[in-house]
Amino acid sequence: MGALDGVHVLDFTQVIMGPACTQVLADHGADVIKIERPGEGDLARAFGPWHRGESLAYASLNRGKRSVAVNIKAPEGKAVIERLLSKMDVLVHNFRPGVMERLGLDYSTTARRYPKLIYATGSGFGTRGPYAERGKGGHESLAQALSGLLAKCSGSEGPTRRLPVAVADFTAGMLLAQAILLALIARERTGRGQFVETSLLDGLMAMQAWETSALLNTLDQKPVDHAANPLDGAVYRTLDGHLMVTALFRANALEGLCVALGIENLSTDPRFATLEALVANADTLRARLEPVLATRPTAEWIPKLEAHDILCAAVRSTAEALCDPQLIANRLIIETEDPHRGKLRHIGTPLRLQGTPPAPSAVAPILGEHTDEVLKEHGFTADEIAMLRARKIIGSDPPA
Amino acid sequence: MGALDGVHVLDFTQVIMGPACTQVLADHGADVIKIERPGEGDLARAFGPWHRGESLAYASLNRGKRSVAVNIKAPEGKAVIERLLSKMDVLVHNFRPGVMERLGLDYSTTARRYPKLIYATGSGFGTRGPYAERGKGGHESLAQALSGLLAKCSGSEGPTRRLPVAVADFTAGMLLAQAILLALIARERTGRGQFVETSLLDGLMAMQAWETSALLNTLDQKPVDHAANPLDGAVYRTLDGHLMVTALFRANALEGLCVALGIENLSTDPRFATLEALVANADTLRARLEPVLATRPTAEWIPKLEAHDILCAAVRSTAEALCDPQLIANRLIIETEDPHRGKLRHIGTPLRLQGTPPAPSAVAPILGEHTDEVLKEHGFTADEIAMLRARKIIGSDPPA
Repeated sequence: MGALDGVHVLDFTQVIMGPACTQVLADHGADVIKIERPGEGDLARAFGPWHRGESLAYASLNRGKRSVAVNIKAPEGKAVIERLLSKMDVLVHNFRPGVMERLGLDYSTTARRYPKLIYATGSGFGTRGPYAERGKGGHESLAQALSGLLAKCSGSEGPTRRLPVAVADFTAGMLLAQAILLALIARERTGRGQFVETSLLDGLMAMQAWETSALLNTLDQKPVDHAANPLDGAVYRTLDGHLMVTALFRANALEGLCVALGIENLSTDPRFATLEALVANADTLRARLEPVLATRPTAEWIPKLEAHDILCAAVRSTAEALCDPQLIANRLIIETEDPHRGKLRHIGTPLRLQGTPPAPSAVAPILGEHTDEVLKEHGFTADEIAMLRARKIIGSDPPA
Repeated sequence: MGALDGVHVLDFTQVIMGPACTQVLADHGADVIKIERPGEGDLARAFGPWHRGESLAYASLNRGKRSVAVNIKAPEGKAVIERLLSKMDVLVHNFRPGVMERLGLDYSTTARRYPKLIYATGSGFGTRGPYAERGKGGHESLAQALSGLLAKCSGSEGPTRRLPVAVADFTAGMLLAQAILLALIARERTGRGQFVETSLLDGLMAMQAWETSALLNTLDQKPVDHAANPLDGAVYRTLDGHLMVTALFRANALEGLCVALGIENLSTDPRFATLEALVANADTLRARLEPVLATRPTAEWIPKLEAHDILCAAVRSTAEALCDPQLIANRLIIETEDPHRGKLRHIGTPLRLQGTPPAPSAVAPILGEHTDEVLKEHGFTADEIAMLRARKIIGSDPPA
């Protein structure tokens, strides 16, 4: 039994943020009915990489959801949505502000009819305010640019492109799931649904809360530049790669590091005795440590440093990371099998819930795979379904 | 009323990941009792930036929590924890694997006594498996290195230090909050608590689920290198800065971009007609676009590109981002006031819950501020409290 067994979700989301959100709900037992456009479906279906003609990107973020292909722009399609809605606990979408209003599926309209419905939306920047008013489309790349994240993660030569990771999409998706879970808990007491939202921009700003405290407030003194501390998240070349070294959180970590490296105890040197001194003499310390670290491969240094409780790690590629036995111990890599795609491997839920573990083997649907099944469950007759299909309101064929 | 009103949380976390998690709970109405070490408290209290002698980093991530200073290593301190535990719904900690076991506060021990307790832990890499077995300490920098995130976000010259943002800590904190909320929902039905966990490494791997689908599976063909597409998350120099351009998601976005730039229609050029061609001829297209974009300031380009529905944004610093009126519309910047720190500004919750909005003005506690209050609420007599204080088991003074 999953934590969300019995929770019914109508999911209009596509690409990454929204599907990552509803993946959390599906992983933990909710019945997630994914509404997709006849013909194309979720935009992610058009993104590679490909396996047997199916998008792996789609397959990785839509496990255990059911796909209903329906043209929601047609009045009969809209009527299908209305009939499904009456049984739903949660509606999730990530359309631009205004789209659901035009479809008559905005929050105030649906809340009047379904006061217990939790209505969740993830957008680029929020559903009100300057960006929403000018209908600005959201995207991972824009959130990275606007939040300051890209600028701060770029080298001295300045940014040339977005960071190649879905940091904004994933973060906002996880936050949106959080908001839905909070609303489900609140509904237990209030008996009422509510509107909940977050955005890509909100998520990346919240991620920076610690650092922004220096920017938002008057300070007693200029903050120390931790980024210049050669013992704090510093990367050193080794014989065969790069080693991350964080010699902090213990008394005299520098002394331990020096012992591990087999060099003189630099911690008694006044140039490295305080944080301020370390920052001021960063290049000097780096110049002493780097040639030593460059003499051995990364894997030899790690046990030596760990023996002195120095935080350290190999800087790896994602492909190397996926081979780490720790991921097996964490049950993070899951395997699915379905007739269309065969066996696939995915990254599954990063949450381990011992009492209500997620079902790991659920597969992503083919476009419209569950259209008939879901409509039948919601009281549509065989004749109604046949008529809707003949008129191309439902089904995987492109709309008429 | 917050979504989590009436939920009682015993919070042993410190620094970023754990406090970010319990901040979600406190923001939404839970009573979060933060257990801190007499003398020092949360390690974050020792981190700047500083204002009136108080850590702003601490202030930003501990709003609305209550601080109880108690030495949990002393038997009498342990007994205090036991008495608090009987009223708790959730226990959260981010100690290294083994620490709570040594204190007799591990899951199996507490679950026997308090079967309704939700026991949540966030670690560096997971509580089982190779890293846990060798007692490896977790840290933002190590998770970035081990997950592949740092390598992929580093330029061609390779990484020199960690990304200067708490991406692993924040992500894992949000995931841990998600796990707690799922467990609260499950408990409504099962009547039982459970053990839930996630880790820094889990979070950063899950963030990469889309991309890892290419690494984990057999592919029909080599995936297209989207990072080389000069219209997909590409940054161009302008007269005064950098512009993020994502000319995707609409029919012939390149044509719209060319019209916006006032140049010939490059979309009919076969060198730029398909994704594969764009990637192959990226430098050629860049060389045509960049000199044009360099002729005007960023702020002039944005409305021109938006008029053609081209996704674009200024690449800003975090300080610039904090001045965006959208953050006001999102109610993301909050102000607090307390006698110790005066007025402060923080980034508040990135979630907007219309029905159960968070209390925005709650302030972070001074070390041990609520020790007496909380102990009284949990049935400690004034004599007991005085005795514990005299013996330096509780209170902000360093332990005896």
